[in-house]
Formats: sequence, C-alpha cells, structure tokens
Amino acid sequence: MTQSPFLQVRFLGVAAYEMIARDGRRVLLDPFLTGNPTCPVGPDNFDRVDLIIVTHAAKDHLGDTARIALNSGASVICGGEVRAYLEAHGVPSSQIRVTAWGMRLEVAGFEVQTLECRHCSFTTLPDGTFVSGIPLAFLLDLNENIRWYHPGDTSLFHDMKLQAELYRPTIGSLGIANPAGIPSNAPGKKLTTDLSPREGVIAAQWLGLNTVLPCHYTSLDDDLVRAFMRCVDDARTNGETVPEILLLEPGEWLRIAADGSIYPTTASMEIENSNGRRDGFPI
Amino acid sequence: MTQSPFLQVRFLGVAAYEMIARDGRRVLLDPFLTGNPTCPVGPDNFDRVDLIIVTHAAKDHLGDTARIALNSGASVICGGEVRAYLEAHGVPSSQIRVTAWGMRLEVAGFEVQTLECRHCSFTTLPDGTFVSGIPLAFLLDLNENIRWYHPGDTSLFHDMKLQAELYRPTIGSLGIANPAGIPSNAPGKKLTTDLSPREGVIAAQWLGLNTVLPCHYTSLDDDLVRAFMRCVDDARTNGETVPEILLLEPGEWLRIAADGSIYPTTASMEIENSNGRRDGFPI
Amino acid sequence: MTQSPFLQVRFLGVAAYEMIARDGRRVLLDPFLTGNPTCPVGPDNFDRVDLIIVTHAAKDHLGDTARIALNSGASVICGGEVRAYLEAHGVPSSQIRVTAWGMRLEVAGFEVQTLECRHCSFTTLPDGTFVSGIPLAFLLDLNENIRWYHPGDTSLFHDMKLQAELYRPTIGSLGIANPAGIPSNAPGKKLTTDLSPREGVIAAQWLGLNTVLPCHYTSLDDDLVRAFMRCVDDARTNGETVPEILLLEPGEWLRIAADGSIYPTTASMEIENSNGRRDGFPI
Repeated sequence: MTQSPFLQVRFLGVAAYEMIARDGRRVLLDPFLTGNPTCPVGPDNFDRVDLIIVTHAAKDHLGDTARIALNSGASVICGGEVRAYLEAHGVPSSQIRVTAWGMRLEVAGFEVQTLECRHCSFTTLPDGTFVSGIPLAFLLDLNENIRWYHPGDTSLFHDMKLQAELYRPTIGSLGIANPAGIPSNAPGKKLTTDLSPREGVIAAQWLGLNTVLPCHYTSLDDDLVRAFMRCVDDARTNGETVPEILLLEPGEWLRIAADGSIYPTTASMEIENSNGRRDGFPI
Repeated sequence: MTQSPFLQVRFLGVAAYEMIARDGRRVLLDPFLTGNPTCPVGPDNFDRVDLIIVTHAAKDHLGDTARIALNSGASVICGGEVRAYLEAHGVPSSQIRVTAWGMRLEVAGFEVQTLECRHCSFTTLPDGTFVSGIPLAFLLDLNENIRWYHPGDTSLFHDMKLQAELYRPTIGSLGIANPAGIPSNAPGKKLTTDLSPREGVIAAQWLGLNTVLPCHYTSLDDDLVRAFMRCVDDARTNGETVPEILLLEPGEWLRIAADGSIYPTTASMEIENSNGRRDGFPI
Repeated sequence: MTQSPFLQVRFLGVAAYEMIARDGRRVLLDPFLTGNPTCPVGPDNFDRVDLIIVTHAAKDHLGDTARIALNSGASVICGGEVRAYLEAHGVPSSQIRVTAWGMRLEVAGFEVQTLECRHCSFTTLPDGTFVSGIPLAFLLDLNENIRWYHPGDTSLFHDMKLQAELYRPTIGSLGIANPAGIPSNAPGKKLTTDLSPREGVIAAQWLGLNTVLPCHYTSLDDDLVRAFMRCVDDARTNGETVPEILLLEPGEWLRIAADGSIYPTTASMEIENSNGRRDGFPI
C-alpha cells in the first residue's frame, strides 16, 4: 500500500481537526461542522472516516459526530454521556468505545491515550433529559515523533506537567479564545475562555509541547487571539521558553513528516523556530 | 451617582452572602434562605438583586435562586445542571450565564473569575430526573484591593496555590463545618465537612488570603468551628502564618472600604491583625 | 464480646473486597459479584453485612449493592448518583449516606474518610435515564495501624502525595488491569486501564502505602498484572522504594493483626519485605 510521506491535518475552526494518516485513514477530532461559522466542510463531505474522537458533549465539540458516525460507520471514542447521546441518535453501541482518564486504547489501528483535563461536559438528549460526564483530553500516539495532544477545552492545572513527563506530547491545540458567530442570549459576556491568554502560554510550557496550535476561534481576527500572541511575545521578551506557535485559519492544512517536521501549506503562516523566525500572524 | 464609601457584605448562614456594591448593585452568593435555620431574610425581602452566583446544585447552596431570579430579574452565573434546574422552574435562559473553570465573565457590570474547586453538584428536577455537573468556585474582582473568593464547597487541593498565584484573592469564605438544624435521615454522622478544621487552615494559607470568613455553619456554637479556631491557634503557636479570621454570626454585616480595610459592624467580633489583636470568637 | 485477633479481608475479584472486623462487623467494598467471572460468592451468601462502600456507579463496582442492601439492611456510603440508583431499586434513603471528597464519616461504627480520585461515575436508572456524578475513593481508618485505602478506579495525579501526608494510608488496592471475561461489543481494545503498569507503581509510591494489593483483574494470568510486576522489579532495580506487593487470587483471604502485620492464608503467595523476600506471583 502506498503511503503518503505526510500526516495531513486540517483545522476546521473552533476545536475541530481532520487528520489523514499516511495510509489514508481519516480521524476527526471534535467535529463541530454544522453551525461552525467558518468551517469549510459539512458532515456529508467525507468519503471515509475511520475514527472520531470527542472530548465532551458541548455542541461546539460533539457537533456532527452522530451524523458522521451513522454515515461512515466510524468508531467513536468518547465518554459515557456522549455515548448516551449518540445511542439516542441511533449510533450502534458497537461503534462506540467509552474511555476515562488514564486509559490507553487501540481503536481503528490508532493508539490513543486518554488524559485528564478540567472542564465540564453536558448536553440534552432528544427526550429532553440532561446528561453530563467528565471532559476528556487525548493524545494520539501517531509515531515515535508525533504525539498529538487534543484537550478539547481545559483550564490550567499543575498536573499538565505530569502529563508532559508521562506522555511527552509534541504538538497540540489549546483553546485560548471564544468562537465568534455562535448565537447566545446569555446575559453579560465572556472576557476570557477557560484558559486566559497568559494561562494558554503557561499551559503550552507545562505540557512541554514543541508546537502549539491555538484554537477555539472562528477567525484569526479575534481580540483573544491577539492577546495570546502578545503574551507569547511578552514571555519571550522575559526570557521564557515558549513553544513554536502556529496560527491556522479555519480550513488550513498542515503536513507533518514522519520525523515530526511541519510544513504549512499556505502563505499566511510563518513558522517560528529557534533561529528566530517570527510566529505567523497574518493580520 | 452617590457612592457608598463601603462595599457591604452580610453573612446569611451556611454559604450564603449578600453583597451591596458601592453603587448599590446587590449580589447574592449561594442564596439558601428558605430552610436555612438562622438566616435573617427570606427570598422576597430584597428590593433589588442584580446578580446571583451559584456554586453548585446542592439545596444548601442553590437554595432560593429560582424564586429570587424570577422575582428580581437578576442575572445568574452557574453551571449547566443548575441552568437546567432554573429553566425547569421557569427562569428564562436570557437571565442565565453558564460558566466553567477558568472562564472570566462580565455580568451585571461585575468581573467574575470562575475557579476550580473539588466537590460534587447534583439535584433533582421537578419531573424527577437527576442532573449533575461540576462544582464552581468564584472570584469577584471588585476593585484593585478586593478580590472576593467564594468556593461554595471544596476539599483541599494543591492547585489552590496556583489560584493564589494567578488570581491573588484577598478575602473569602471557606466551609469548615456542617450546618446544624437541617434534617437528614441518613445513617451515621459526619465527623468533618469537605475541609477538616486543619485542612481549612491549610487552604487559607495556600490561597494566600488576607482574611478568611469560615462558613458552612448555622451558629457559632458549633464543635467544628471551635476545632477550626483551635487549629488556627495551633498553627500560629507553631510559627505558621495564618490569615486574619473573621467569625460572623448569621445576619452580621461587614463593611469593606475601597482600600480593602474591613470594618465589622457588631461588638461580637474583634479583628485580628498583625499588631496582635485576637481573632473574634464570641463564645 | 470475643474479638478475633485479626481483621480478615477477602479479595472477590475486580475491585470487590469483603472485610470482617475483629468484632464481626462485615464491610463490603464495591461488591460486584454477579457477572464477576471468578468471584467465589453471590449476593445472597452473607449472613450479615453492616456497611457497603461504593466508589462509583460503574457496573463492575456498584455491582450487587442494591440487592445486598435490601437483603441485609446494611448502610451504604456512596455518591449522589449511586443513591439515585439505589433508591430507584427500592433501597430506603435511611440506609444511604451520601458523601463527597474530604468528608469524614462515622457509619456503622466505622470511621471512613472520603478521598478524591480521578475517574468517572455513571449508570442508567430503571426508567432509562442516565445519571452521573463524581467517583469517590475511601480510607477506612480501622485502627492506629491499619488505614485501608480503596480508590475504586483512578488515574494518576499529584495530589495523591497530599493524601499520603494528610491521611497516611497503610495498605490499599490499586487497579492496574482490565477485568477479563466481561463482555463488551465496543470497537478496538484497551491497552491499559486508568493506571498503566508504571503509573500503578508511581501511585503506590506517592500514596506512601506500606502494602499494595493490585486489583481490577479477574485472574492473575493477566498480561497487565505481569507488566505491573515487571515495573515493580524495574523500579527496585533502579533503586526506587516500592511498597510490598500482595497479589491475591479472587477468593483469597488476608488476616491482618491489630499491629498491621499481614498474614496471607494460602501458599500461593509470598510476602516481600525489606529483608529481601520476593513478591508473591504464583505463575
């Protein structure tokens, strides 16, 4: 079987990612597509999906999981409350693997480590009942050089350092903004998301990531994204080590070689490295 | 608009607090009034409520939130399971802001930081279904000198030190007793609450508070309150630094000046300070 | 009243333990008996049960609690979602004591400290509704020399060190495998449980246990049990201090004297101690 030289990863906005492994298997992370204002694809646009990984039951993460799982027959890794939701929407239990913090799985040929994060997870079933559970973070152990960290949503906690020691994530996303364009009638406003811009920098450091993909936005034209980048700059000015930051537009692809080298595919990005090139920020 | 020189805070028993800002806005924290044996006010006794903050769905914290929100039109900050409860009791979703650990909000003109705590949160809806979620702690950032920490219920955890570093709470409550006078037919008895007396002292130290209001009692004539004060004394005897402790009777008011100075309003209290005055303990 | 010289403890497979105190009171921990492939007893085989302690609502821990509580009238210590389950199965609320992390209880004459652990807890009620809550760990403070730690399921977290400082557990179980023989139609497979073999060793060290009973297996002929024992050996080879490890077959009894000395009752085990005897491993 021909292998692509690259793992390909596309950011779909908010915390949704599409991954195509070198052998063609496709993984979707938190596939919130319908209602995601700048997402370039819909739930019926995939010719093949092998695995869907869902961190928690919030609409902007669980998203179109049920429909894609029904269309594709993909396996789903998730928590118990997400399984309840999926089963209520007709997904067979034989497609669903429930996991919990610490557990390491092999599903659809992928090794997936479940990690703790700090957030909530709840939704409502079609019959109106409320379900909740624990939020999950994940590390996809893709090869010896690529360990992809996907926390969904999380606040900052010291055991991120423990995760760095035990699992050595190399690249991953961190939600540092609030998605614009998703209607809400709640009073007041959010000043930060679960990680403030400064906490996002600390999380990136504690997790020991080489490369961070900020996420949980729908456009790079976002005050919290800008505030995060200022915190990155401030940290470097203060002599702190900060991982490489990759700012992706919704729809952008990355190519990652087997040795972990990252090749962006659009001119809107520059990749910072230890030789002093600047973080990309196309605004 | 005339401003009061003071933020006024009244302890209402258990973990309920009433705050009146200098401009007259009223905030209620965990307003458990009906069934709270020594609470001096009822849910219909407020001429104005701007904001209600609910840490978790337990009856002794959620309390009269639904009724007060319906009466007053106040905004409510809470978790998803509390929103489900409030909506089931008729509170419009446009009054409810759901939050999660790490998130910073502005509601009713108040800056409110949501913080992690360690407890549970569950209740039953009118249709008999069970709902649960994560418990929330809060920091009200009232001005540059007053950052009020309100944990609801929590056990001890090391990331309290992280909260101290990131958010520098100045004054706050800590539940160190079990409310007397609330009927239960459960077998056995509670020997401590979620913080043992000694753990309450450690929590106060780790949070870096200047002033601690012990709470989760209905009367100062309480063995766990006495045990907590003995632990405070023991810690000081051992050379440990312990924040100022303010023991309030249900119904007592504090006045807090803009510079953070605290003025008790009743003779039953003395305020300990670094010049050696003693903690108040009116028994 | 005649006292036995020993506390007697029987491992029932997975995470189920039966304890008979010196005065004859019986405690069951996570009594998953029906459907537990190698469990030697059923729910109707106890002449007396005084207390049942349930860590979380998963079938392999909650197990036969409802039936045994109904048969025996035993008190149950558990979380709110387990109470909802038990009440839906007819157990009177007067038999159920709900607890939360940090809380210390006295029930049926036993002092029981509730401790934090990191897992999930959910199940389905007879009417089909989904309930969830926080998982609980416990320390049974049996006497000044025996403090039994029972975490149910947990992943690794740094505050285990805090638990060691505050509560000084002496002996306890740690789930390091996945029970064989329990049917599942979920896709893929589990490579580890919530504690990987190496993490199980670290947890044992951080908790400061003198003696560890690995658990969450149905047979000692288990790859993860073997992997755990290799990690124990590796740690010792590396000069790390590792507690005594006791591998029990489902059905095996331990006798523990009031001074904490442990007397195994079968020839399949040898007890490691500081004088160089080897950990028992009967394969």
